Amino acid sequence: MALPTTRIGLAGLAVMGQNLALNIAEKGFPISVYNRTTSKVDETVERAKLEGNLPVYGYHDPKAFVLSIRKPRVVIMLVKAGAPVDQTIKTLSAFMEKGDCIIDGGNEWYENTERREEAMSELGFLYLGMGVSGGEEGARNGPSLMPGGSFEAFKNIEDILLKVAAQVPDSGPCVTYIGKGGSGNFVKMIHNGIEYGDMQLIAEAYDVLKSVGKLSNEELQSVFSEWNKGELLSFLIEITADIFGIKDDKGEGYLVDKVLDKTGMKGTGKWTVQQAAELSVAAPTIEASLDARFLSGLKEERVEAAKVFKSGDIVTDQPVDKQQLIDDVRKALYAAKICSYAQGMNLIRAKSIEKGWDLQLGELARIWKGGCIIRAIFLDRIKQAYDRNPSLANLLVDPEFAKEILDRQSAWRRVVCLAVNSRISTPGMSASLNYFDSYSRESSPANLVQAQRDYFGAHTYERVDIEGSYHTEWFKLAKQSRI
Amino acid sequence: MALPTTRIGLAGLAVMGQNLALNIAEKGFPISVYNRTTSKVDETVERAKLEGNLPVYGYHDPKAFVLSIRKPRVVIMLVKAGAPVDQTIKTLSAFMEKGDCIIDGGNEWYENTERREEAMSELGFLYLGMGVSGGEEGARNGPSLMPGGSFEAFKNIEDILLKVAAQVPDSGPCVTYIGKGGSGNFVKMIHNGIEYGDMQLIAEAYDVLKSVGKLSNEELQSVFSEWNKGELLSFLIEITADIFGIKDDKGEGYLVDKVLDKTGMKGTGKWTVQQAAELSVAAPTIEASLDARFLSGLKEERVEAAKVFKSGDIVTDQPVDKQQLIDDVRKALYAAKICSYAQGMNLIRAKSIEKGWDLQLGELARIWKGGCIIRAIFLDRIKQAYDRNPSLANLLVDPEFAKEILDRQSAWRRVVCLAVNSRISTPGMSASLNYFDSYSRESSPANLVQAQRDYFGAHTYERVDIEGSYHTEWFKLAKQSRI
Repeated sequence: MALPTTRIGLAGLAVMGQNLALNIAEKGFPISVYNRTTSKVDETVERAKLEGNLPVYGYHDPKAFVLSIRKPRVVIMLVKAGAPVDQTIKTLSAFMEKGDCIIDGGNEWYENTERREEAMSELGFLYLGMGVSGGEEGARNGPSLMPGGSFEAFKNIEDILLKVAAQVPDSGPCVTYIGKGGSGNFVKMIHNGIEYGDMQLIAEAYDVLKSVGKLSNEELQSVFSEWNKGELLSFLIEITADIFGIKDDKGEGYLVDKVLDKTGMKGTGKWTVQQAAELSVAAPTIEASLDARFLSGLKEERVEAAKVFKSGDIVTDQPVDKQQLIDDVRKALYAAKICSYAQGMNLIRAKSIEKGWDLQLGELARIWKGGCIIRAIFLDRIKQAYDRNPSLANLLVDPEFAKEILDRQSAWRRVVCLAVNSRISTPGMSASLNYFDSYSRESSPANLVQAQRDYFGAHTYERVDIEGSYHTEWFKLAKQSRI
Repeated sequence: MALPTTRIGLAGLAVMGQNLALNIAEKGFPISVYNRTTSKVDETVERAKLEGNLPVYGYHDPKAFVLSIRKPRVVIMLVKAGAPVDQTIKTLSAFMEKGDCIIDGGNEWYENTERREEAMSELGFLYLGMGVSGGEEGARNGPSLMPGGSFEAFKNIEDILLKVAAQVPDSGPCVTYIGKGGSGNFVKMIHNGIEYGDMQLIAEAYDVLKSVGKLSNEELQSVFSEWNKGELLSFLIEITADIFGIKDDKGEGYLVDKVLDKTGMKGTGKWTVQQAAELSVAAPTIEASLDARFLSGLKEERVEAAKVFKSGDIVTDQPVDKQQLIDDVRKALYAAKICSYAQGMNLIRAKSIEKGWDLQLGELARIWKGGCIIRAIFLDRIKQAYDRNPSLANLLVDPEFAKEILDRQSAWRRVVCLAVNSRISTPGMSASLNYFDSYSRESSPANLVQAQRDYFGAHTYERVDIEGSYHTEWFKLAKQSRI
């Protein structure tokens, strides 16, 4: 008996791929699945049976896989970024026809997507680069989807994506057509950079509460659970509370204290920082988060350095008002988070302008409200800010955010100073605070930097009072005034 | 009458090129010069006459130019990085012979140099990418030179470079063979990144002294002049003192107050930050410096933001002990500077390992002691640190530097907190302090970050007590413990 024609195909059946295929099938769309290592195909089909006889059809042969899909065919790839994507495209496109579409659901560098979209377009194929956030769990139960590239291809599967994406009451499915070219991948990359920032700021809050406030894991669990009922309500705060409650299964105490303080990373945080430099957009909180990961990896060096600087230990035996500290840290975390998102959103806007993508920042905040790692009630406020003013220069100057920052800045400054005086590094909170203080100040000391540049490199300068570009022979004048 | 055969040629006669040609000629090496816009050739020859009948021979024709040079020929190019370099190589190499050498003296991206060296090598030519620091004045009177690429080519002109470079008593000419490939350009790029850091830290010192300490320009001039007699003795501190003394020639008051606080930049700072991310090396002070330049450019936005946040102005009317503040800021500046250089040196070392360049960090500190923008007595200490321990993991843990930091850390923390509470941003000093506090601490809160990553992405973690890689079903356990 011939297998039925399916609505869509998915190639690449690691856990993310399996889960997304099952999610699609569960929403009522028959799906063909394929993997080079064929055991994964059988595994997926088996899971589909177990999870409710979902309409998943497995193929060991790429040709049969492609031909089983209804025209115009759509295949989502979930394979490793880089060469495996090119290889999969080659394998599949051999059996595809004009008007068919391939979607890359991986964390691909956006320029690779643009290169492929162009090459595919010359062959008459459509192409999408679609950011998928939410990890394995999100893929199965509703991710945040960021498809960019061919609008025609998006329309062909819009009905599927709308059902497969996370559903958020009052704000709809977490998917929208992002824009042309590699915009879907780019936006997902910045999403991950923002995620780095969130995680680092939470880690600093934890560090200050634990190291200065001497909070136990039980107290930390309760604090973060409490925070998760207010303005900080978010997936990352929720799992942080969870983490503090898990006992070690291999010994005494709590598991979090047994986890080595070395952080891994993939490429998207690095790319975000590199793009910030490329786009001339300040992103100090995200940079600090990446640097913190780098420094965490130098565990052995840190152990040695700690010995060298032991004698300089500052004992902070000042009594700390615990409740005041908890309140202060919550406020500092929230204010620092606003700055981090301001950086991320401005990165997206700068790229959108450069590439002519016309990205809708408020709409991005909306589709991040569910499914993805940075999902948070906070994103509502960002959406509202861009609804109020789509051309907002910076989230900081939105009236609501400005008020929130003003209400929290004293607490924020207290936390940073307390950390500085306790030798607890808070690179993310400090970077955010310096970002705020730099951005909200009319005059900066950059006049001196520009004077220096003109002094040694004749780079010229502008004046505060008269139009034009000026150069001064500083050295000659200084020599004269010395005489 | 035929012109004499010269020892070397120089193509690209903007001010830097002219000055370097005159410098070479003045040291006794007859030099041929060429420029596409021929008026620059005549201008250079004219200057050579005026500045002491120096042996500079001008050519309007590239063939005659190349043929006028003694074999094996060496031509230094000082043209804009990128396409103009390729164009110049094409023009000149048409008349060159095997064994001849081209040197790129511009701020070129090191991979371009490696590509060109390879292409030239296939044609039998030698190639060097040579960082030249010191601006126009350095080029004329003695720059710091960072030649990398063909060692054979270096040996061919070593005698010239040794005389042309800046001469520093007790430590010799500011030139050394850097290493293979693009290492000369790479090292020059990091030099510039460090320069960004120095300039930003000085700007912050200025800002705190002016905005919090209310120092006048006269006082600032005297403070920086004083600082230039001690541990901070350097070109940048010297010119900063000079700058505060210059009166405005177009109005009342001092010129520095009329310079607009918008900073320009070229590509090397950006590249440094991007390379830091690429190499997984934390470089927060240099990143903060680049970000400060980006933010300085948003003058109009800052003016608007200042209005929004006006109500939050913190009035610091606490009396400040001026002399104590000046002392504190000096110490903070010095300690922050150590961290910035530690980052720069570690960037170079990471790249050296990746590329197999075998770069000598102490030797780099030596050749930066004269000629270049970052020249400073401080570089002696860096050289000594690497002399004591060539495989030093980080400048911070060198015993001498460690002691210097310990002596200054209280002042440093006071300055950062004072700035935080006065709404004066000190992104560079703060980034350095957080770098120090992160690096010198045995345990970091990265255990939480890694637990989060394992929670939502099954990224696994290591343990502090048992070898191996672990994964925990955090969510399942949390659900159980909630019941």
